[in-house]
Amino acid sequence: MHSLYPLYKTYLQQIADIKYASAVLQWDQETYLPKNGNYTRGRQIATLNEIAHEKFTDAKLGNLLKELFLEENLTATEKRNVQLTQDDFDRNKKIPAAFVYKMSSVINVGYHAWVDARKQNSFVVFEKPLQDIITIKKEEAELLGYQKHPYDALMNDYDKGLTVDIVDKLFAVLQPQLSLLLNAIAAKPIIDDSILRQYFDKSTQWELGVETLKRMHFNFDAGRQDISEHPFTTNFSNSDVRITTRIDENDFANMLWSCIHEGGHALYEQGLPEHEYGMPLGEHCSLSIHESQSRLWENCIGRGESFWKFNYEMLKQKFPQQFNNVTIQQFYTAINKVQPSLIRTEADELTYHFHVMIRYEIEKLLIEGTIVAKDIPTYWNEKYQKYLGVNVPNDVQGCLQDVHWGHGSFGYFATYSIGSLYAAQFYAAIKKENAIVENQLSVGNNLDVLHWLQKNIYAHGRFYNSEELCKKATGENLNSKYFIDYVTCKYKSIYNL
Amino acid sequence: MHSLYPLYKTYLQQIADIKYASAVLQWDQETYLPKNGNYTRGRQIATLNEIAHEKFTDAKLGNLLKELFLEENLTATEKRNVQLTQDDFDRNKKIPAAFVYKMSSVINVGYHAWVDARKQNSFVVFEKPLQDIITIKKEEAELLGYQKHPYDALMNDYDKGLTVDIVDKLFAVLQPQLSLLLNAIAAKPIIDDSILRQYFDKSTQWELGVETLKRMHFNFDAGRQDISEHPFTTNFSNSDVRITTRIDENDFANMLWSCIHEGGHALYEQGLPEHEYGMPLGEHCSLSIHESQSRLWENCIGRGESFWKFNYEMLKQKFPQQFNNVTIQQFYTAINKVQPSLIRTEADELTYHFHVMIRYEIEKLLIEGTIVAKDIPTYWNEKYQKYLGVNVPNDVQGCLQDVHWGHGSFGYFATYSIGSLYAAQFYAAIKKENAIVENQLSVGNNLDVLHWLQKNIYAHGRFYNSEELCKKATGENLNSKYFIDYVTCKYKSIYNL
Repeated sequence: MHSLYPLYKTYLQQIADIKYASAVLQWDQETYLPKNGNYTRGRQIATLNEIAHEKFTDAKLGNLLKELFLEENLTATEKRNVQLTQDDFDRNKKIPAAFVYKMSSVINVGYHAWVDARKQNSFVVFEKPLQDIITIKKEEAELLGYQKHPYDALMNDYDKGLTVDIVDKLFAVLQPQLSLLLNAIAAKPIIDDSILRQYFDKSTQWELGVETLKRMHFNFDAGRQDISEHPFTTNFSNSDVRITTRIDENDFANMLWSCIHEGGHALYEQGLPEHEYGMPLGEHCSLSIHESQSRLWENCIGRGESFWKFNYEMLKQKFPQQFNNVTIQQFYTAINKVQPSLIRTEADELTYHFHVMIRYEIEKLLIEGTIVAKDIPTYWNEKYQKYLGVNVPNDVQGCLQDVHWGHGSFGYFATYSIGSLYAAQFYAAIKKENAIVENQLSVGNNLDVLHWLQKNIYAHGRFYNSEELCKKATGENLNSKYFIDYVTCKYKSIYNL
Repeated sequence: MHSLYPLYKTYLQQIADIKYASAVLQWDQETYLPKNGNYTRGRQIATLNEIAHEKFTDAKLGNLLKELFLEENLTATEKRNVQLTQDDFDRNKKIPAAFVYKMSSVINVGYHAWVDARKQNSFVVFEKPLQDIITIKKEEAELLGYQKHPYDALMNDYDKGLTVDIVDKLFAVLQPQLSLLLNAIAAKPIIDDSILRQYFDKSTQWELGVETLKRMHFNFDAGRQDISEHPFTTNFSNSDVRITTRIDENDFANMLWSCIHEGGHALYEQGLPEHEYGMPLGEHCSLSIHESQSRLWENCIGRGESFWKFNYEMLKQKFPQQFNNVTIQQFYTAINKVQPSLIRTEADELTYHFHVMIRYEIEKLLIEGTIVAKDIPTYWNEKYQKYLGVNVPNDVQGCLQDVHWGHGSFGYFATYSIGSLYAAQFYAAIKKENAIVENQLSVGNNLDVLHWLQKNIYAHGRFYNSEELCKKATGENLNSKYFIDYVTCKYKSIYNL
């Protein structure tokens, strides 16, 4: 008897074609779309999403899966694909096609309102469209179902198994530890990082970013970089992985680490198994694991001493006027300055997590209905005062700074912090396995790091969930001590604590 | 009783969303796609085309159309939409979805082989994939059906009603007339156009192109321009019309008139009725009419004395070193030099039609099976010798120069010449209606021309076919005498014939 597996694979790959087509349209929307094209582009994306959803929830696929569960000769990876597809199928069956279409339209309106609101520096412009997004997200949570908290249903989409209980507990440990460290740092003299606020022309910054990506082994034959409002990574196969960046000529830190961050995401996508195109095992494990990949490169490596021992020469060549009189130690200290600030994507590794906690808290309250969109600016500004002691002067530098809500991405933010925890734990495992990794980095050799990630993370796709993958790769479950150790050690040295 | 028209409109617009999505993927393929992304991009485009085709040939649409034909309260435009959809439906029903998918894949392979063949300057690299395209195009002709010649079926896709009989007769008149004129010119001294072969840097050429497009009233809020191997125009609605160009730093003529040419196409697309998105009346009339729009701007206007009376100053400002010692008369003469040459897209207005005739002849013979792909280079090179007296030194400058065959666009070329005939006839009608049009152009006012085209061509979409539209706009059927008069008058003056 012939296996139905090839038929199933063809079916899933056709759905992948449609989803990736939609991703191309979204990439174009944020990079090159002319202004007036917004309306029709929105409906085009909505239509593709609707078709993909229809196909994925079709009884034909349900029946195919039933038959495949009865087959005895499937390999372990084939079985895993079938199981994961069944999980996704069960999840998607809960969301009617018309609801997906409606949500896509609401989000499209919301996204453009967010862009306009930023231009006008006024949350009010975004408020109503955002409340519409929140309302539909609450409906989505109800449709998906949950055990304890509606927000669990939404977080689950980004990291299966993540709950308000888990994150609340995690943040309850992390927050005081980081506050202690932050207070110790606050008692020390402020680091002067004005060298990073000189004038850095756009095209040289761009070249530096591209060269840095090449040094990370980002494959430009299988991807590209462009400019957009908010940096992101997307992919249309593992042979076409696209990242974007933004460049601020008066803030060096803005571009380079976003470049390395997105580059870390991109290496993961480029490293996923090619022959599993369109199948669950060709996809990333979870957004927490995805984020661990960007943060490992951005922070553990890209803000590390070893990395700069090798790369500082290139930087001085690109910007001689700005850096020729700056020692590597001054530079290293400047790029690791800890200071409470307004913008999440520009925050240091330490205060970053307070930005996340605030957003997590707000989303949780919005989804459970304790607050509404209108309440966001006040709540936001109060929390920034409380956690970080900073005053939010306007909405663009406040609650309008992230694209996520305009994208309808509720439940996403917590994965950023969890990603950092995973990153620290993975990086500790890499160092344990290879004692000379820092020496290698200091001469520009990051291949051992890359190979470890390829072998232990990229190659598995979605075979394991986050927890299993972490256990398999590091020998233990996720443990926040690696991150706390990492930041404590780092800042003790930098701040002489 | 409720009309089914809104349901039908929604259905067609959903298909349009999918087709336009496919067009975005193709645009990206020719502008920004990283090398390794080709394979998966090919299958993504093929999948979208297959889905669009499935939906368009679905019995659901057939039944809807049947019901709509019985409705009595439809407006004239609604009725026309329904009729045109029925025509398209009947045509598409002849092509099975699997055939569309196969053709899309074969063409994708062929396209990349064409790119490679050009890189290697070797037709042999393209031969087999091209023959595969020809074979599937012959199958397509059989599926579509025809009365006399299989090539009729393919030409019909670009201009409904166009046949080998018509084109053969047309070219039988045009060819000797143009040969006469060409011989008269050949007896005169050769025009020195070396001023156009100076060095013109890329970025200034780019700026010039953009400025010229703005002066043509190309709306950059509803479109954009990018760089590609072969210039083309595409659109994803009339609010997102994209053109591409290529720039040769040692050949000024290469970029500017391709820019104006594609700009003419783009004005047509931007001018189509917005409220008819996805409906036949929101589409262009035919490729012959489309071509008339590009050629009217490129040649009748863009190579005319009046246009340059106004625009020459801008050119001198952009390239002072190259043009400050060149009189407008020298420039005008140089850009209208007639000389048999190798590259169609760089040919003058006169010899251009011999390039088209050769391609038309080859396609006709390929589709009827008299010759095969392998025979193309020999046939091509012989015809270039015969018609134009030029020796083809290699395939890149010979039969590999056009993207069309790599795109599977058989039956297209004749519309270029017919487009020129329409352009001359439209331009004569514009001048007849508005005696001062040349005076207007010489002070930079092209709005009357644009408004005439908007009213007489753009606004109608596909309401009329090419012949009807021509009759309505100019008062008579297509008549080659306008083109012959136009070129005769032009070159008599330039060459003192």
